[in-house]
Amino acid sequence: MPVAEAYGVMASCIAPRPIAFVSTLSPDGKPNLAPFSYFMAGGSNPPSLAFSPTPDRTGQPKDTLRNIEETGEFVVHIVTYEMREKMNITSSEFPYGVSEWEHSGFTPVLSTHVKPPRAAESPIALECKLFKIIEHGEGFASARYVIGEILTAHIAQEVMTDGEIDTEKVDYLARLGGNYYARAHSEALFELARPPKVQKYPEG
Amino acid sequence: MPVAEAYGVMASCIAPRPIAFVSTLSPDGKPNLAPFSYFMAGGSNPPSLAFSPTPDRTGQPKDTLRNIEETGEFVVHIVTYEMREKMNITSSEFPYGVSEWEHSGFTPVLSTHVKPPRAAESPIALECKLFKIIEHGEGFASARYVIGEILTAHIAQEVMTDGEIDTEKVDYLARLGGNYYARAHSEALFELARPPKVQKYPEG
Repeated sequence: MPVAEAYGVMASCIAPRPIAFVSTLSPDGKPNLAPFSYFMAGGSNPPSLAFSPTPDRTGQPKDTLRNIEETGEFVVHIVTYEMREKMNITSSEFPYGVSEWEHSGFTPVLSTHVKPPRAAESPIALECKLFKIIEHGEGFASARYVIGEILTAHIAQEVMTDGEIDTEKVDYLARLGGNYYARAHSEALFELARPPKVQKYPEG
Repeated sequence: MPVAEAYGVMASCIAPRPIAFVSTLSPDGKPNLAPFSYFMAGGSNPPSLAFSPTPDRTGQPKDTLRNIEETGEFVVHIVTYEMREKMNITSSEFPYGVSEWEHSGFTPVLSTHVKPPRAAESPIALECKLFKIIEHGEGFASARYVIGEILTAHIAQEVMTDGEIDTEKVDYLARLGGNYYARAHSEALFELARPPKVQKYPEG
């Protein structure tokens, strides 16, 4: 299967995907902001995440990847339904060094442990330092697993209830295949409790 | 922050998550089937994915991880809304070697390139071989990035239109924090086109 076709199939197969909206700085301090939906939580001991900024059609690394390779720091924001239009602007291919912050209108706020700023508009921002980059494949659309350790989480009061994140308040956005997005709110949300633990079960 | 608390925060921060429903075999052929929502696509050249079966409260590796370490093969299924109850049964902690297939009622079908069977009930099944396992942290809830190369994708005709996966037909299920799930269908879905490419932009 040609890579371009495989790209479309992958995006429809593994869905709905959370969106990592990533802030980085180049070594000389130029800011970058871009969304990536090849993104996962990895664990919580210590808190860890990964995302994959795949090389573009020319095979060149994305600005985000270059900046993380060179500085080791980034901030991952969660994208809400309200952020969708501004986030979409940052998915344009600007030349290296052009600020997506200005063009999209997100508001930069100083981070606590890393140099890249965080966006005030996201209710959940995770400051990260690079742990490891694992490459799989070569060229356009090959995998670049950027694994980061989360140093601190900024969580807005307006998405919390009794000191915890309230799933019904966040209004999460998810990415699917083609131009599709999904909004995880109201009727789309439901609860399903885990079954009780089975301590022992006779074999056979 | 204690690990148990960090676990809850992570699950609410990085969401909505696609669910990898993973079929493996132990070296002596005992089948295992379990859901993991720390899961991502990585790229498509070659097609690649990762998921993280974190160690349980005793710090022991999950059966899925042990089986992949020993055999190098697994099948990842996408979970639909219709599969939710059966999938939930497999999230119980059964003793090693007990078959989640029997207890949940999924139907095993022979895979093409790997030994673990795939479940007939999932419209999207991805046969994978292990590329690499990256550990981050130690013990309960630490990250185990299992990176796999996708050898073949089984896609059911009923989720396709004109030879392509139809996002509106799949009825994807996503995982969020606590006991929350989201269903990506009908009103939850919408389209948002990428902005046109910016070829050049004056600096300054």
